[in-house]
Amino acid sequence: MNWWQKDCLAINEKVRQEALDRQNQLTKPPGSLGVLESIAVDLAAMYGELTPHLNQPAIAIFAADHGVVAQGVSAFPQAVTVEMLRNFINGGAAISVLANLHQAQLKVVNCGTATEPDFDGVIDQRIAAGTQDLSQQAAMNMEQCEQALLIGKQLVDELKSEGCDFFIAGEMGIGNTTAAAALGCVYTQVEAEQMVGLGTGVDEHGLQRKKDVVNTALQRITTEELSAIELLAQLGGFEIAAITGAYIRCAQLGIPVLVDGFITTAAALAAEKMNPGVRDWLIFSHQSEEQGHGYMLAELQGKALLQLGMRLGEGSGAAVALPLIKEACALHSRMATFAEASVSEA
Amino acid sequence: MNWWQKDCLAINEKVRQEALDRQNQLTKPPGSLGVLESIAVDLAAMYGELTPHLNQPAIAIFAADHGVVAQGVSAFPQAVTVEMLRNFINGGAAISVLANLHQAQLKVVNCGTATEPDFDGVIDQRIAAGTQDLSQQAAMNMEQCEQALLIGKQLVDELKSEGCDFFIAGEMGIGNTTAAAALGCVYTQVEAEQMVGLGTGVDEHGLQRKKDVVNTALQRITTEELSAIELLAQLGGFEIAAITGAYIRCAQLGIPVLVDGFITTAAALAAEKMNPGVRDWLIFSHQSEEQGHGYMLAELQGKALLQLGMRLGEGSGAAVALPLIKEACALHSRMATFAEASVSEA
Repeated sequence: MNWWQKDCLAINEKVRQEALDRQNQLTKPPGSLGVLESIAVDLAAMYGELTPHLNQPAIAIFAADHGVVAQGVSAFPQAVTVEMLRNFINGGAAISVLANLHQAQLKVVNCGTATEPDFDGVIDQRIAAGTQDLSQQAAMNMEQCEQALLIGKQLVDELKSEGCDFFIAGEMGIGNTTAAAALGCVYTQVEAEQMVGLGTGVDEHGLQRKKDVVNTALQRITTEELSAIELLAQLGGFEIAAITGAYIRCAQLGIPVLVDGFITTAAALAAEKMNPGVRDWLIFSHQSEEQGHGYMLAELQGKALLQLGMRLGEGSGAAVALPLIKEACALHSRMATFAEASVSEA
Repeated sequence: MNWWQKDCLAINEKVRQEALDRQNQLTKPPGSLGVLESIAVDLAAMYGELTPHLNQPAIAIFAADHGVVAQGVSAFPQAVTVEMLRNFINGGAAISVLANLHQAQLKVVNCGTATEPDFDGVIDQRIAAGTQDLSQQAAMNMEQCEQALLIGKQLVDELKSEGCDFFIAGEMGIGNTTAAAALGCVYTQVEAEQMVGLGTGVDEHGLQRKKDVVNTALQRITTEELSAIELLAQLGGFEIAAITGAYIRCAQLGIPVLVDGFITTAAALAAEKMNPGVRDWLIFSHQSEEQGHGYMLAELQGKALLQLGMRLGEGSGAAVALPLIKEACALHSRMATFAEASVSEA
């Protein structure tokens, strides 16, 4: 049995029930905190603690390049992947600003950029100089795919040993909305026409090109004969596979995951298909403007906390939602009950 | 001229344009931070500062009782208004937990509860022991209404002198969704059938009773002959009028307002109708589950940041959204531009 097939930790249904009971005793009309109530109850069940609290959230950005950029699927040049790694390290990217604001640890992992960064601060795990062009051949061979999964697993193991109890993954990789859309198609059975979106902002011709590229890739393979991990190798990317491995490991270790947007949700789909049960450990932070995201969320029976029209990636949507998770925990844990506060009930 | 008719401060359109330009230079695909971009740009225009920052947000809860509870419009007994004031002071209410979490100042103002609190910590501005029953007669006489407006104005003046630069109002008052719904009807021309909702959680019969009560109140008056302030006196409440006064004063002094839910949006409507221009200083935090809220937001051409299914009041929805405002400012102010970070553009 491979590591990624080992059971996910079971969530604690008894504590879930106790947490639900507590919510109904707090000084508010029952249900009036909406989604914040269910977030708190879910976290109680995940941590097995009636009044959950995030002690040490961590954000890890996984980066890699994509051979499919040769097909002209992105509005930005491939050089931006490495340029943005420098920006993450130097504190100028959205995710850097948010991690700093929320005092969350930020790790940046290079899973395979086309060129080697000439600066420090990035964890170097380069598998290759980008994937192969997924419209022409498998993006990764199986060995590379397993290597990428392991990068995510090992990072989560390391974070866990450092005390991390809440995980956000982000990604950087010019071309990766094309890979994510291709994965979305095979994992949800939704057509490329619906799944492919504008990414960083291609024009109408670019959008058609992306759809054609995804369809070419889908025609190249016999989907129903391939396992979830084989589909990931065929159509994914190093950073997407690393995030898949990270999510699976979080579910095995019992670390709640706040999923970001389109690309990380593709990784979440891969993780759940490879190891059913991962889903129990996922909270969905925001609904991306990227049009296929809703189909992926539906497949995972997930509803996003935020609808802010974001489509940046990097883990930025999840980082933006982090305070809501903390608020949900604080409300659940610190509010007085009707009895404690001597407030009359309905 | 009355104080509330004096001009609102003009927002700075030049800085708005500069802030828009800055957003488009930051290291992200243009528009990819969605609503967080427009929030930052709006705040830049309000503060007249290219890179805005909230230094001292304050939360003020205005409380009062409502004569209309005699008609059986609430799921909770009237005693809860004062009981919750104690809970606010003691830190056990949702808004107390959130204010504490966000290190925001919390003021609690009693504008007119049915009974006098027997504990300290509340700013005592009681106008009367609750309003009259709005289904039978004017809730307030004009003198009381002006007195209530002044409570809000004076509190904002005081907060301003203490350095407050961002304002959240909350409310507490058993029965106040009925008053807010009645105001919603006259300010938006939407029928009671659509405007009246479940409040703290009445049953089907209670809902019909609320609709009947609002219709009785509307039939009692000749809407088109009454000014915005006269409508507020007829149908509002002491706390709603105080919030109206607070919002108007914020707009006059140039303090951005984060509006909470159904009841505070009714106050925002009153404020904008009494002094057009207040709207420019309002940000809408969340869309309440209370069914009429959407009509009020539409009348104010406002779109809420969050849709979390909340319906608690107290300013809780606005407090939940406060971190998003801080995130929007931090991203706008601290992200690097493409030039600064040497990142290639599209």
